[in-house]
Amino acid sequence: QAESSEAAERVQELSVYEINERDRGSPIYLRLSQKTVNSLGDLVPFTNKLYTGDFQKRIGITAGICILIQNKAEKGGDRYEAIYSFYFGDYGHIAVQGPYLTYEDTYLAVTGGSGIFEGVSGQVKLHQIVYPFKILYTFYLKGIKDLPKELIVETVEPNPSVQASDAAKNLEPHATIPSFTD
Amino acid sequence: QAESSEAAERVQELSVYEINERDRGSPIYLRLSQKTVNSLGDLVPFTNKLYTGDFQKRIGITAGICILIQNKAEKGGDRYEAIYSFYFGDYGHIAVQGPYLTYEDTYLAVTGGSGIFEGVSGQVKLHQIVYPFKILYTFYLKGIKDLPKELIVETVEPNPSVQASDAAKNLEPHATIPSFTD
Amino acid sequence: QAESSEAAERVQELSVYEINERDRGSPIYLRLSQKTVNSLGDLVPFTNKLYTGDFQKRIGITAGICILIQNKAEKGGDRYEAIYSFYFGDYGHIAVQGPYLTYEDTYLAVTGGSGIFEGVSGQVKLHQIVYPFKILYTFYLKGIKDLPKELIVETVEPNPSVQASDAAKNLEPHATIPSFTD
Repeated sequence: QAESSEAAERVQELSVYEINERDRGSPIYLRLSQKTVNSLGDLVPFTNKLYTGDFQKRIGITAGICILIQNKAEKGGDRYEAIYSFYFGDYGHIAVQGPYLTYEDTYLAVTGGSGIFEGVSGQVKLHQIVYPFKILYTFYLKGIKDLPKELIVETVEPNPSVQASDAAKNLEPHATIPSFTD
Repeated sequence: QAESSEAAERVQELSVYEINERDRGSPIYLRLSQKTVNSLGDLVPFTNKLYTGDFQKRIGITAGICILIQNKAEKGGDRYEAIYSFYFGDYGHIAVQGPYLTYEDTYLAVTGGSGIFEGVSGQVKLHQIVYPFKILYTFYLKGIKDLPKELIVETVEPNPSVQASDAAKNLEPHATIPSFTD
Repeated sequence: QAESSEAAERVQELSVYEINERDRGSPIYLRLSQKTVNSLGDLVPFTNKLYTGDFQKRIGITAGICILIQNKAEKGGDRYEAIYSFYFGDYGHIAVQGPYLTYEDTYLAVTGGSGIFEGVSGQVKLHQIVYPFKILYTFYLKGIKDLPKELIVETVEPNPSVQASDAAKNLEPHATIPSFTD
């Protein structure tokens, strides 16, 4: 019993890249505020591609919505409330909710998951590299079994020129996880 | 302590039917994408009725939103990101988030709950019977006490003709849970 | 091990006030149903201010969305599905989801958190004082370490005239938590 409790509380780190390759018609900026400056009332549904931290495999997609909360003129950016999921093919998904600030890194809450992520809790660091096209996420996950080895890889150092390997972009069989989400 | 930990980790299964009887003005398809094909940008608020798995009692309602992520022409359907709650009258509610695919079954994350579902974690299988009017959900729940007996009933085998008993549809006193949600 | 399990399951109570001082352009009622009565299809993004229960310190903000589910003519009010976060400056945030009824108190699910609220579970009571401008929340939180003393204060008895102290409204340095969210 003690062992299983320890296992459950152990924090596992998982890094993934979210990349907008401009081929999914995303994001859609719904200017429902009808104002010229981004304002409360605007909604931004989105979906991007997910790759392993070493960019060698396509994992799946992100899917969800950003709710514009406030334009921060002095920061040159916006505060959003973000509610979305990360899809890992046959492995399942992770749901998150929290702050997305276009001008600085944030931590979002992990609110749940399915498949190998069933019962997960924790948080995720959102590190923006190129707004809004390239983001590195580092998950800190508790309450789940050992993550698959193909997800725990050496993460490429974030910089503006990072991109997926050609094999992963082209969805070559060895360069995707099982039944990756598309 | 060991006993309570074991209890907390025990998985309880709970099946409920969600039925759209076309009397709640739901769903509302908000075609904010302004495209002719379902597209990112469209939003679908909804609320349906919930019955016990044996269709003998009205439980409450579902309430939430589906975010259109992608039309899958090759599957003849759509991917949505779904964020909603299941209301169980005085018992409380369960919040969920995850994939809703109109063409195949999925698992969503249980993200939390209130009342007897306070502190719950787990996942729920969404099995579609008649799109989008009849869905069978099977919850796999952890971290909560024994579920009430009136919720743990023999589930009617899903088929396109399933419907609530007349007593439950008519909200006869013996055919609802305590203070069912409407 | 037993001790840490006990600590994790201990419930901590936390009360905060959410006040709409009408200076954040919130809420925005998006009448997407295009009906004259509040109806399914309407969406209400919002962001208000958060103060400690004794009104002596500004904590941060709330941020999220209410989804109109049903107008209840007989209750003179509305049912919403609410999905939002509470921001506590450098301490982190708490994400919640559940019912917001304009005519009675409700309990929402705590779905996750960041910072000192990483891994949190539980529920929160929403007690409305003046619709929709003054709300008292009482959180019942599990799975986290002892809350900071400045958050655990004597809560002002809720009544329609409650308001933040001048010092907190004016954001005087001693009247905010560290790096409060604005």
